[in-house]
Amino acid sequence: MNDRHLHDQALKPDATPHVKRASCYVQLTKPVPPIDNAAREQARAHQNQLTKPPGSLGRLEALAVDFAGWQGTVLPRLEHCRVRVFAADHGIAAEGVSAFPQAVTVEMIRNFAGGGAAISVLSRLYGADFRVVNLGTVQPLVGEDRDHPVIDDLQLAPGSANICVAAAMDDSLLAAALAAGADAISAGEPPQLFIGGEMGIANTSTTAALTSALLGLGVDDTVGTGTGVDAPGLVRKRQAVERALNLHLAHCDMPLETLRRLGGLEIAALTGAYVAAAQRGIPSLVDGYICTAAALIACRINPGVRDWLLFAHQSKEPGHRHLLEALEAQPLLDLGLHLGEGSGAAVALPLLQAACVLHGGMATFAEAGVSNGESGDGV
Amino acid sequence: MNDRHLHDQALKPDATPHVKRASCYVQLTKPVPPIDNAAREQARAHQNQLTKPPGSLGRLEALAVDFAGWQGTVLPRLEHCRVRVFAADHGIAAEGVSAFPQAVTVEMIRNFAGGGAAISVLSRLYGADFRVVNLGTVQPLVGEDRDHPVIDDLQLAPGSANICVAAAMDDSLLAAALAAGADAISAGEPPQLFIGGEMGIANTSTTAALTSALLGLGVDDTVGTGTGVDAPGLVRKRQAVERALNLHLAHCDMPLETLRRLGGLEIAALTGAYVAAAQRGIPSLVDGYICTAAALIACRINPGVRDWLLFAHQSKEPGHRHLLEALEAQPLLDLGLHLGEGSGAAVALPLLQAACVLHGGMATFAEAGVSNGESGDGV
Repeated sequence: MNDRHLHDQALKPDATPHVKRASCYVQLTKPVPPIDNAAREQARAHQNQLTKPPGSLGRLEALAVDFAGWQGTVLPRLEHCRVRVFAADHGIAAEGVSAFPQAVTVEMIRNFAGGGAAISVLSRLYGADFRVVNLGTVQPLVGEDRDHPVIDDLQLAPGSANICVAAAMDDSLLAAALAAGADAISAGEPPQLFIGGEMGIANTSTTAALTSALLGLGVDDTVGTGTGVDAPGLVRKRQAVERALNLHLAHCDMPLETLRRLGGLEIAALTGAYVAAAQRGIPSLVDGYICTAAALIACRINPGVRDWLLFAHQSKEPGHRHLLEALEAQPLLDLGLHLGEGSGAAVALPLLQAACVLHGGMATFAEAGVSNGESGDGV
Repeated sequence: MNDRHLHDQALKPDATPHVKRASCYVQLTKPVPPIDNAAREQARAHQNQLTKPPGSLGRLEALAVDFAGWQGTVLPRLEHCRVRVFAADHGIAAEGVSAFPQAVTVEMIRNFAGGGAAISVLSRLYGADFRVVNLGTVQPLVGEDRDHPVIDDLQLAPGSANICVAAAMDDSLLAAALAAGADAISAGEPPQLFIGGEMGIANTSTTAALTSALLGLGVDDTVGTGTGVDAPGLVRKRQAVERALNLHLAHCDMPLETLRRLGGLEIAALTGAYVAAAQRGIPSLVDGYICTAAALIACRINPGVRDWLLFAHQSKEPGHRHLLEALEAQPLLDLGLHLGEGSGAAVALPLLQAACVLHGGMATFAEAGVSNGESGDGV
């Protein structure tokens, strides 16, 4: 807990620039485009013409219909996927809540860039457009890492403040982190799918605090072992989240304020990214616990965002299930994943691609000369 | 039910050539090679050095370790996958148990070859080596379809007999179908993974009969809607399976005899293929209800086969869950799939590939200069 003093001092809320918060709220609540329901209906009709019993491809059929509605075409394609990992440090790490030292956040940023992290390997495997955005670490990137071709080194602050003793961010920092997420969406050619990931030692603690505040749950429901904290660490983690809730909960009646007080820079960036993606008609495939908390905040701020989200997997973290239920989300995979980085979403990506390729590539009954059930001759 | 008379007459058990059955039993019970446990241990140790919290890739870690044990190397690869769809007709179709006419079996064989079926599309997408093996259809393939480059047209018989009134196969036919499955494995360069698929109108009925006989379950537990039979059809299906069980159950004390009486040509071929693959050190990724019944029979005949099987998905068919439980198998996916053809296994294939690529492609803590939990400095 060497960095405790530093963290407690960092980023104390000052005279709040409410103007900035108001302006970022206006941006976040701008409407989301409607789903193309005509294309969805056409896609559903097309599905029923394909050479298979109706419904036999299960959720893959629904996924193809979802993409038809998003892309406004009966035969959607999924070839361009953008992966952005948002990284940041968390002051609450000083409470001894993680199995890993805080230095790992910046070390992993270098590992993302070097291609050795899980999300790097998966992005390469699936040909996704991959970058890592450093919102702010205690140990800043130095030297050539700052200019690495796949790193956006924003370094808005040396991490967020320790939520046990202060708000995670002031309004300026919150606005900057939200905008960084939106910028990650607006840059370049729009992809057909966005995957957000996160890296930040202790961010399952802030996520647990957020989840408790957003859903009115006790810490037993929201605090898990994260990266594998031991039993004494888990006790410290529960106590720290409890302290944070005691300090902030009375002020957490609005989702943006809850995010500012209990969140983290990368969680705010994810929130901004999910909203911006939906506003631009780009669906997002949401990863695990931390990403789903950001997605819930995005939907609380702008409910139209929900129509543009898919949920990749059921994490091993216990709080994740509650977030998914609140979002009425059924994740695609349940493989005991709990790595973060967007890796669970990347693992699920081939399911979405298979859904679109099957939808566009299978023959219809008429094309293949296959009898369908309705023309059955007495069986 | 135009073909009913034909089916009832077909393939009545005659003077049983026990010699043939005995010889195929000798082949089926030949030992399966042991798993390389040293390679598994090395792979497990390697997993724990990769830049992620231990266990955080969930079942993907176990899959990589499985492939290490199968390939006898710490860094396994999964690049060559063989997909074989075994097709055959079933006499029980005459009982009106399917939503589709029996002609669909041979029509789908042409669709597999033409590239328009789900398994064809997925095999192409994933670069798998794909062929379809016609064990025997009521309407045989004719003309150039017989010589199609991806069809092996064996046509051992015009389908299996109606199990409501006779045994599905005689000993010769059973032996030939089992051998056809084994031949599909032994031909060519051994793949790194085998996926078996099946096509046969009414084969969820024979599979229900097999499952009831193998596991001592009533028809309510094993008969589902298959390709989407309507309510009266479901009643007919239950009654037909019940009749078949009444006729054969007293003689079903051995798995091979159960298969001969209640199975089908493609189910026997799958059984032969799973055994032969394990005997040659090739793991199989088992698809849905029908394939899992064949896998259970393979394991009952030769228990060593079980170590070489993975299970792709939980089918919507109710009997599938019982088979998986009997095999102590945890399927990878639960997406409401129930198409057959091997399609659910193909959908799961990228998970296996991701597991191997992550295992071989991620950096270790040492390589990436990332602190691991054990070197934590006070957090």
